[in-house]
Amino acid sequence: MEYKYYDQEKLYLLKSNLVKEYNKFKSQGLKLDMSRGKPGADQLAVSNGLLDAITSRDWDDDASNHSLEYRNYGLLTGIIECKEIFAKLLKVPTKNVIVCGNSSLNLMFDYITQCMLTGSGAAAWRDQGEIKFICPVPGYDRHFAICEYYGIKMISVDMTEKGPDMDAVEELIKDPKVKGMFCVPKYSNPTGVTYSPDTVERMAKMCPAAEDFRIIWDNAYIIHDLSEHGDKMESVFDVLKKYGHEDMVIEFTSTSKISFPGAGVAAIAASDKNIDMIVSRMSVQTIGYDKLNQFRHVKFYRDVKGIMNHMRLHRSILAPKFKAVVNEFNNQLGGLGIATWTNPKGGYFISLDVMEGTAKRVYELCRDAGVTLTTAGATFPYGVDPKDRNIRIAPSYPPVDELLSATKLLCLCVKLAACEKLLEKFE
Amino acid sequence: MEYKYYDQEKLYLLKSNLVKEYNKFKSQGLKLDMSRGKPGADQLAVSNGLLDAITSRDWDDDASNHSLEYRNYGLLTGIIECKEIFAKLLKVPTKNVIVCGNSSLNLMFDYITQCMLTGSGAAAWRDQGEIKFICPVPGYDRHFAICEYYGIKMISVDMTEKGPDMDAVEELIKDPKVKGMFCVPKYSNPTGVTYSPDTVERMAKMCPAAEDFRIIWDNAYIIHDLSEHGDKMESVFDVLKKYGHEDMVIEFTSTSKISFPGAGVAAIAASDKNIDMIVSRMSVQTIGYDKLNQFRHVKFYRDVKGIMNHMRLHRSILAPKFKAVVNEFNNQLGGLGIATWTNPKGGYFISLDVMEGTAKRVYELCRDAGVTLTTAGATFPYGVDPKDRNIRIAPSYPPVDELLSATKLLCLCVKLAACEKLLEKFE
Repeated sequence: MEYKYYDQEKLYLLKSNLVKEYNKFKSQGLKLDMSRGKPGADQLAVSNGLLDAITSRDWDDDASNHSLEYRNYGLLTGIIECKEIFAKLLKVPTKNVIVCGNSSLNLMFDYITQCMLTGSGAAAWRDQGEIKFICPVPGYDRHFAICEYYGIKMISVDMTEKGPDMDAVEELIKDPKVKGMFCVPKYSNPTGVTYSPDTVERMAKMCPAAEDFRIIWDNAYIIHDLSEHGDKMESVFDVLKKYGHEDMVIEFTSTSKISFPGAGVAAIAASDKNIDMIVSRMSVQTIGYDKLNQFRHVKFYRDVKGIMNHMRLHRSILAPKFKAVVNEFNNQLGGLGIATWTNPKGGYFISLDVMEGTAKRVYELCRDAGVTLTTAGATFPYGVDPKDRNIRIAPSYPPVDELLSATKLLCLCVKLAACEKLLEKFE
Repeated sequence: MEYKYYDQEKLYLLKSNLVKEYNKFKSQGLKLDMSRGKPGADQLAVSNGLLDAITSRDWDDDASNHSLEYRNYGLLTGIIECKEIFAKLLKVPTKNVIVCGNSSLNLMFDYITQCMLTGSGAAAWRDQGEIKFICPVPGYDRHFAICEYYGIKMISVDMTEKGPDMDAVEELIKDPKVKGMFCVPKYSNPTGVTYSPDTVERMAKMCPAAEDFRIIWDNAYIIHDLSEHGDKMESVFDVLKKYGHEDMVIEFTSTSKISFPGAGVAAIAASDKNIDMIVSRMSVQTIGYDKLNQFRHVKFYRDVKGIMNHMRLHRSILAPKFKAVVNEFNNQLGGLGIATWTNPKGGYFISLDVMEGTAKRVYELCRDAGVTLTTAGATFPYGVDPKDRNIRIAPSYPPVDELLSATKLLCLCVKLAACEKLLEKFE
């Protein structure tokens, strides 16, 4: 029976039982973390071969070996072999790819910084008064942090099962102060939604009032499937081309969740014009990124096929973790009418919507019993979830047994918080 | 006899002989590069062991090994062992060090960017009208490029044998629009000058009209001696402390010319207040830099002593190259009164001053005969050497035999350009 049909007495009894259970958990002194989309130790291990992919022997003999120079300065936009792999992965020409350092977040931050100081094609954003960004919610807290850092006003747009609510987006872009939008098009953080072809089409054909409107296309989970048959997605640039809108999107990706989160390779894909603008800034910013690490990745993976095979290893570790959490949700929370959750086909998160007005309480209850969740509200601009209901679950980091303990506690806290909330009516 | 005492006839004869010699060079079809401070292949080889310093075996067994986590996200300001090495090198407390990616230029660019957008302690520099930077000349072209990119007006100050002309600097800082200064305090690029204790003292005690004045202390050649007894230098922060001016300097360094130029580790040292400000930006910019590469450096060098030993290897390769160039200058140009040059005790450059008004001509003559020099003027803001006389010589990249050919040609071109110039008087 759904909780909302419980009378006061039944709720009191339920609460008393849940509190007992909760205290039992508390006494276990758990110390578990489901807060960040961090690969676990088991996942890190599958990429250890990367550490042996290049050695001094690669430079032993052949002075004509062109890779010799990868140790030196130069090659600002990255080594060609690595560019080619990213070009195939992103389905864009090699000339439209720049391969950089270890962090795509850094590349996005730098790009927004460039827009603020020197513009994305028109005047510097900073000289255009208060500017705004469209932020699909729930979304990625680090995107919101960049906007907040630069005082870019964030306007939330709901995520649907097909991607951002495009009716709302199409309305918002009529405002010339709206300069851009953050998107995680595939296995969105945290909902796991992959934008539908229709959503991408509507996005690509947009004619925003601001000519310098830019979509930050954060393709962080481009090949991060949790099942054999993951979601498929066209290259956004192929769709943009139909409308001559290639300049509107800057795409970012990285191997952070393919090789090592701390020591991967990040890349940008963009139109000729945008690549030129970005390179003109980069050429002042640095002499070049770490080409040896790019080369290391090329030698380890060889090609896109090598990467796809490698992703199977990650999947074999991740899929059971996601399944364990979703099963527990089904078993513990199913039919109670107090929560809904996603069952994503890829990415790193499960998005859990608890009873309105209880997400913070669930976070606190879990924290006090030793389980760290992503801070409630983090998936919304300014850290404020207007309905106080969304919690981002990151199942990747803990081993399965710990994950199960944490999920059991989480379910209990979801119930307890809902019960408390419902009892308020009778006060 | 000095050229200036030659009469017209003697100059004509000289020119005719020099042109013959020059044409002989030209016919050789040389293709040599003395333009950038790039280590040569021989120098790269001495760091090849870095590529074997960490392998998958480091992660084989011990789950309690704290380095395990270096593969994952986290540790924004760098791994502790690496911070400790830089702290000792820079003679500052570990808490005042941030260890980052592969490029100190990138760190300087990012810091100036931060100052432009959010300020260095007061208002954003970009909101303060036209701001200015003091640039000791001749200096480093990539510093100037950052100023130019952001429209920061550059004011040249002459380098003396003790460092920047401090009388001029002390005058300039009375202008509140003067917000900062670029310095390469040790083995300055390109003069090789190490700032004298007196210069550092006068700099540390400055009270600029702009409270948000910042010195970019680019300590790129901190241990890059060319002789057993290199220049010694105190930590600038120890001197600043005497005046309570620790916030005025941000120090940068890297292993670009210690390990690999393309794949080293860069670091920042700064006051508590500045570190906090920089970290507050970095925490939005990235989740962390490449900790595995930091760890690779720690394992390869172990400690400062290991680095100092390693620098001997570089020295053994570099010193003969510098000696070859300086000897050639002495032999070919000595006593002619048409050029002066430095004989640095460290760093990567020889600064050659040719006859006024002939640097560009020397550059062209060399270029047309197949030797690439740093563009004449590059060592001055906006690429304009007002006396058209300075040429930065980078002896590190070519092998010694090629270097000698290039230097012979260079000397010839210096003579030819001077001869042409002197003949103008008779026209």
